[in-house]
Amino acid sequence: METKRYQIAILGATGAVGTRILEQLMQSTIPIAGIKLLASKKSIGKRITYQSKQYIVEEATPEAFEKVDIVLASAGGEVSKKMVPEAIKRGAVVIDNSSYWRMNDQVPLVVPEVNGSVLATHRGLIANPNCSTIQMTVALAPIQKAYGLKQVIVSTYQAASGAGQAAVDELLQQTTAYLKHETMHAERLPVKNDQQHYPLAFNLLPQIDVFESDDYTHEEYKMIRETKKILCGDSTSTEIKVTGTAVRVPVVIGHGEAIYFEVVDAQADPQKIRTTLSTAQGVRVIDEPKNQRYPQPLLAEGHRETFVGRIRRDLENARHFHMWVVSDNLLKGAAWNTVQIAEQLVAKNLVTVPENSLF
Amino acid sequence: METKRYQIAILGATGAVGTRILEQLMQSTIPIAGIKLLASKKSIGKRITYQSKQYIVEEATPEAFEKVDIVLASAGGEVSKKMVPEAIKRGAVVIDNSSYWRMNDQVPLVVPEVNGSVLATHRGLIANPNCSTIQMTVALAPIQKAYGLKQVIVSTYQAASGAGQAAVDELLQQTTAYLKHETMHAERLPVKNDQQHYPLAFNLLPQIDVFESDDYTHEEYKMIRETKKILCGDSTSTEIKVTGTAVRVPVVIGHGEAIYFEVVDAQADPQKIRTTLSTAQGVRVIDEPKNQRYPQPLLAEGHRETFVGRIRRDLENARHFHMWVVSDNLLKGAAWNTVQIAEQLVAKNLVTVPENSLF
Repeated sequence: METKRYQIAILGATGAVGTRILEQLMQSTIPIAGIKLLASKKSIGKRITYQSKQYIVEEATPEAFEKVDIVLASAGGEVSKKMVPEAIKRGAVVIDNSSYWRMNDQVPLVVPEVNGSVLATHRGLIANPNCSTIQMTVALAPIQKAYGLKQVIVSTYQAASGAGQAAVDELLQQTTAYLKHETMHAERLPVKNDQQHYPLAFNLLPQIDVFESDDYTHEEYKMIRETKKILCGDSTSTEIKVTGTAVRVPVVIGHGEAIYFEVVDAQADPQKIRTTLSTAQGVRVIDEPKNQRYPQPLLAEGHRETFVGRIRRDLENARHFHMWVVSDNLLKGAAWNTVQIAEQLVAKNLVTVPENSLF
Repeated sequence: METKRYQIAILGATGAVGTRILEQLMQSTIPIAGIKLLASKKSIGKRITYQSKQYIVEEATPEAFEKVDIVLASAGGEVSKKMVPEAIKRGAVVIDNSSYWRMNDQVPLVVPEVNGSVLATHRGLIANPNCSTIQMTVALAPIQKAYGLKQVIVSTYQAASGAGQAAVDELLQQTTAYLKHETMHAERLPVKNDQQHYPLAFNLLPQIDVFESDDYTHEEYKMIRETKKILCGDSTSTEIKVTGTAVRVPVVIGHGEAIYFEVVDAQADPQKIRTTLSTAQGVRVIDEPKNQRYPQPLLAEGHRETFVGRIRRDLENARHFHMWVVSDNLLKGAAWNTVQIAEQLVAKNLVTVPENSLF
């Protein structure tokens, strides 16, 4: 029998995540028939080279999705809102990186090694979670399974690339200005279309995405709701309490997270948790305090794994622990998780828009 | 009656904190008779200029403390261990910035606006707390007083200057190298005399000070023990549970802290906490999410206050709250707190080594 080969479109192909989706796709196990790079009008004709092969960017029109099997979308919420239905109507299964569809009950929100089984329920669309949520759930899911999980309190240390390549460029320009004792200009961070902008270079911005109700940012809500949806199957679940603070730090790639968590099982201890995580898919434990070995963004860059270290017990609460989690936010936090979902869809023969299609 | 004027010595006068102690001292209310700058042999004869007045650095010998009333010491643990007794024996009251004496039951550990009353018990020596502890207790003490405090979980975002000027220089050199795509060299961070060194530029190092028991770092233990000593009068108190993770971030000046805390009083709410903190000494509340106003290291630099914002309730635990605290680690975290202690000693007429002197 001939191997089925897939026609794949990357929507938002010119962005920091889009270019990495192409890279990850070329390194994946997916049998590829062809790749289409789609973006907005202003990028038409742009050439993207990967391993000496040139791809020419086409305009993302509804018709561009004809004969496409899988769409890997990373073009922001507004584009996804409009284009995802067009692609599904034309028979393509979509994996979407934007936050627009994530909270829809009919859309599985998937981290393959955590809840890959829900892929079977898809109705044409699978949502890729928020970057900081993905790495947190990769580290927490094996703990939840082994010891039960009651509560999570997270402080994030998020890289500029989470806000796109323009934010990285701005950070580097500010850094250059700072070193020359010149004025730093800010137009992108913390949030491109928000009112105030502040320099990130040699600074900390305790705002990621816009503010919502109860003075939480949208990023903080994403981490609360998405973590519940992924770990408990419901974004409003009360099974695990989740709260936290999201902070942007002057790092280019690699989000850090100081995660404090409470387990159910009184028998859990740091060494057991280390062992549990060491055998978990997608996790690499780097936790040797005596040799000063622990996860760092510069060491995580370019890797697909989620790195975990600094596993310790709260000295005054026996079932409460700390861990320090780092991952490449553009790979596991975005491009790789998207391609990994596509790999699983292919492996499970789920690349078909079903009868009960969303659109 | 003639105003008493004080002879003051700064021990470790050439360091990042020492030079700021001189600045803060010159801006203080203390009537100064004279200032001696003391440092190690290699700095003898060095000139330090403050507002067009030149000071010449002298060697820190035991004899240098003769006729000195107040010693403001910031020369590291080993120097303090040796020199503090010499100064006290010669009749000088010492305020020490190192961690060496902090856990001694006979040494008050003081943040003036928090526990200034314990100054009256001094026996010749007062310890200045750890930088990250000071700003945390300034923000927590008014909350403890108004609502009762049960538990504190902190994640720190600490600036390079907390590890001294050489660490700042290293960060800036690494940053320059990174921008030129050159190799980054590391010899100072995370800990000067530890085995491994890693770049801090565009990176995060979840190690501040050396590792101790139970895989906590010395910095994390300082925050636990010192916070208990300052807020509860005893470093082993079980009245308030304290735990956390200390992380070095690529910032030059200004520590950030994501503090999660549990109060006793079920009537506490974010607005009440904001009001409580707004009237607290040494605190400036910057907490206007709708205008995107919140504390940032670049805005805190050069100020004496502790800045507090992002005050929010945990959406699933009614008596649990978040806040984001930033302060200039070289001023309130070190130089200003030291000079502020000296101001209070002067105001309370406590600049005398008592009969029951430690040495």
